[in-house]
Amino acid sequence: MRAIITGIAGFIGSHVATEMLQLGWDVTGIDDLSGGFAANVPEGARFVQRDCCSDLDDLFGEVKPDVVVHLAAYAAEGLSHHVPNFNYMNNLVGTSNVLSAASRFGARHFVFTSSIAAYGHPSTDSPLTEATACHPCDPYGIAKLACEQHIAAFRDYYGGPDFTIFRPHNVFGPQQNISDPYRNVMGIFFRCAKQGLPFPVFGDGSQSRSFSYVDVVAKCIAQSPGNAAAKNQVFNVGGDRAMSINELVDAVAKAAGVTATIDYLPARKEVLHAHADHAKARAAFPDVYRDAIDFEVGLKKMAAFVQQMDVPAPTPCPAPIEIVQQLPPSWKNV
Amino acid sequence: MRAIITGIAGFIGSHVATEMLQLGWDVTGIDDLSGGFAANVPEGARFVQRDCCSDLDDLFGEVKPDVVVHLAAYAAEGLSHHVPNFNYMNNLVGTSNVLSAASRFGARHFVFTSSIAAYGHPSTDSPLTEATACHPCDPYGIAKLACEQHIAAFRDYYGGPDFTIFRPHNVFGPQQNISDPYRNVMGIFFRCAKQGLPFPVFGDGSQSRSFSYVDVVAKCIAQSPGNAAAKNQVFNVGGDRAMSINELVDAVAKAAGVTATIDYLPARKEVLHAHADHAKARAAFPDVYRDAIDFEVGLKKMAAFVQQMDVPAPTPCPAPIEIVQQLPPSWKNV
Ligand SMILES: NC(=O)c1ccc[n+]([C@@H]2O[C@H](COP(=O)([O-])OP(=O)(O)OC[C@H]3O[C@@H](n4cnc5c(N)ncnc54)[C@H](O)[C@@H]3O)[C@@H](O)[C@H]2O)c1
Ligand SMILES: NC(=O)c1ccc[n+]([C@@H]2O[C@H](COP(=O)([O-])OP(=O)(O)OC[C@H]3O[C@@H](n4cnc5c(N)ncnc54)[C@H](O)[C@@H]3O)[C@@H](O)[C@H]2O)c1
Repeated sequence: MRAIITGIAGFIGSHVATEMLQLGWDVTGIDDLSGGFAANVPEGARFVQRDCCSDLDDLFGEVKPDVVVHLAAYAAEGLSHHVPNFNYMNNLVGTSNVLSAASRFGARHFVFTSSIAAYGHPSTDSPLTEATACHPCDPYGIAKLACEQHIAAFRDYYGGPDFTIFRPHNVFGPQQNISDPYRNVMGIFFRCAKQGLPFPVFGDGSQSRSFSYVDVVAKCIAQSPGNAAAKNQVFNVGGDRAMSINELVDAVAKAAGVTATIDYLPARKEVLHAHADHAKARAAFPDVYRDAIDFEVGLKKMAAFVQQMDVPAPTPCPAPIEIVQQLPPSWKNV
Repeated sequence: MRAIITGIAGFIGSHVATEMLQLGWDVTGIDDLSGGFAANVPEGARFVQRDCCSDLDDLFGEVKPDVVVHLAAYAAEGLSHHVPNFNYMNNLVGTSNVLSAASRFGARHFVFTSSIAAYGHPSTDSPLTEATACHPCDPYGIAKLACEQHIAAFRDYYGGPDFTIFRPHNVFGPQQNISDPYRNVMGIFFRCAKQGLPFPVFGDGSQSRSFSYVDVVAKCIAQSPGNAAAKNQVFNVGGDRAMSINELVDAVAKAAGVTATIDYLPARKEVLHAHADHAKARAAFPDVYRDAIDFEVGLKKMAAFVQQMDVPAPTPCPAPIEIVQQLPPSWKNV
């Protein structure tokens, strides 16, 4: 069975590839290296450097994948306000382009990583379930929801491919890019810990998130094409451990063995509390959740990964900033 | 007061321009003529042939519009399944591009034509209100909803421009393109009547729509920037006269003074019954609705327009077809 994984040189993509290789898939990976690293591609996978927005017919025609796992995206949610054209082009037109190629060459299953950002400002305090109405409030979330709708409409109209859509949130673990200045608060904190820098916190740090060690996310994605309970379904996926950004500062400092100082920055417009219910994913992937790595153990694995690495140069936004108005000063300097 | 109207050479755009000129606006119109006709641009408006997806800074910087009315779109809903990349590029990235330029040069109001297609398959039989949940089911409707969300998120994040969003449906009247083979059932029927051809009907013709003479739509759009009740609001707009496609055949044949024959084609996947509630627009634009031209009178005006014109050559899709699978045979021959 042949799979094409887009975004394979990225954080989650590299873990998904490892899992799928272990499950016996023949894996071809695509990535334009705009945000990922060729070194992340696991041994045993074929790697092709390619933009998902380009003509993919030669490659898809040659591989004839049974399954396409589409993870490639520009994933800096906060920055998406400042690069809206690029966001819609790369994330929505890119997804449409990959899905059309998948369909053209007979793929029977399409796996997509949406995001908790598809929900937008939560209208309740209770955790978001897959039935919660989606009102995305930034270009990144808007594009993710449009991708979800496109994938479902495509299947309805053309009779296939089947799909599984995941909405992860705040994933962390080895292979994460700790030098992306625009996102991944966990990665940024670990980098600051390593470099002895103060941890930057937007606002007062009381905003809260649930953080997910990568194993659950990667395993659910990798197993979904073979799981009947995942056919044409949407899942929240990740961990349930909620904490404020201030609590995260302490947790990272402890795992990294440093004493953190905080650099409080002006608040950004962002969702204050975002937490997802995972009952549906737990029911469909019980073994994955049973064997999930504990949050603190995950933090230690992340700390070990960061310790042994050389911090890469900051990853700039791959596209020019389209709107500089209201760009946080800390981003302007990149 | 200066306005830029995109899609000014199109059907609705030309009427909006006429209305705004009458209201005293200084009007600059943009259109790439992919679907419109330069002859539609009313006297008194400045016309610039330009693609909305291109760099607009020179033009917007020169005009410094107070208001931007963004009507340009590729509007063939049914065909959008077959040109998804082009649809998202032209309609969503294009809208993002126009909005960014509007904001950059200080426009205070942005008017956008979404569509009833943003609702998708209606989940109830009652007419759609603006509070009805949106579940678009084709790329055209998905892009329209994403545009709406983007415009609202943009205002939220940047503090402006204010917006008014309209969701029209099945508009007809003079200046309508009767040679677009992919859409405008009303235009297609009038062309067939004029050319003595059978009227093509997908399925059994029992699917129903409400048809709107263009005056109400164009007037609400033109008056919205000056109407406090329209600030940051979404409106269904159009007429309430519901009829099946079979009934439409009879109405057009009568107005055109012909006896219609019908060419029944295989059913397409489409929404069966789509009707919108206009209470909100009636309340915000009471004069426009009070003076609205009656449906039958509108049909006569349309018939007169079609009678005096030379039927233009069929307007092809401006982009290559991306997915030929399931393309209705009648479209394949274009
Ligand atoms: N990490 C999270 O917390 C999180 C949360 C929700 C959703 N997601 C989604 O999961 C997916 C993977 O995220 P990640 O955290 O691994 O991010 P990542 O940046 O590490 O990986 C994305 C990869 O896609 C590649 N890419 C981007 N645009 C491309 C294009 N046009 N063509 C080819 N390759 C391209 C990048 O080079 C990168 O290697 C993304 O779709 C992201 O939106 C991630
Ligand atoms: N007519 C209807 O029944 C209806 C219903 C719902 C929504 N709408 C929306 O109303 C708007 C106007 O529709 P219409 O019926 O007048 O269609 P139309 O095709 O007559 O007008 C659209 C105009 O936009 C122009 N255009 C398209 N892409 C462009 C681009 N990239 N750059 C510059 N110009 C471009 C076309 O050349 C055309 O002149 C559209 O946004 C459409 O989606 C129309």
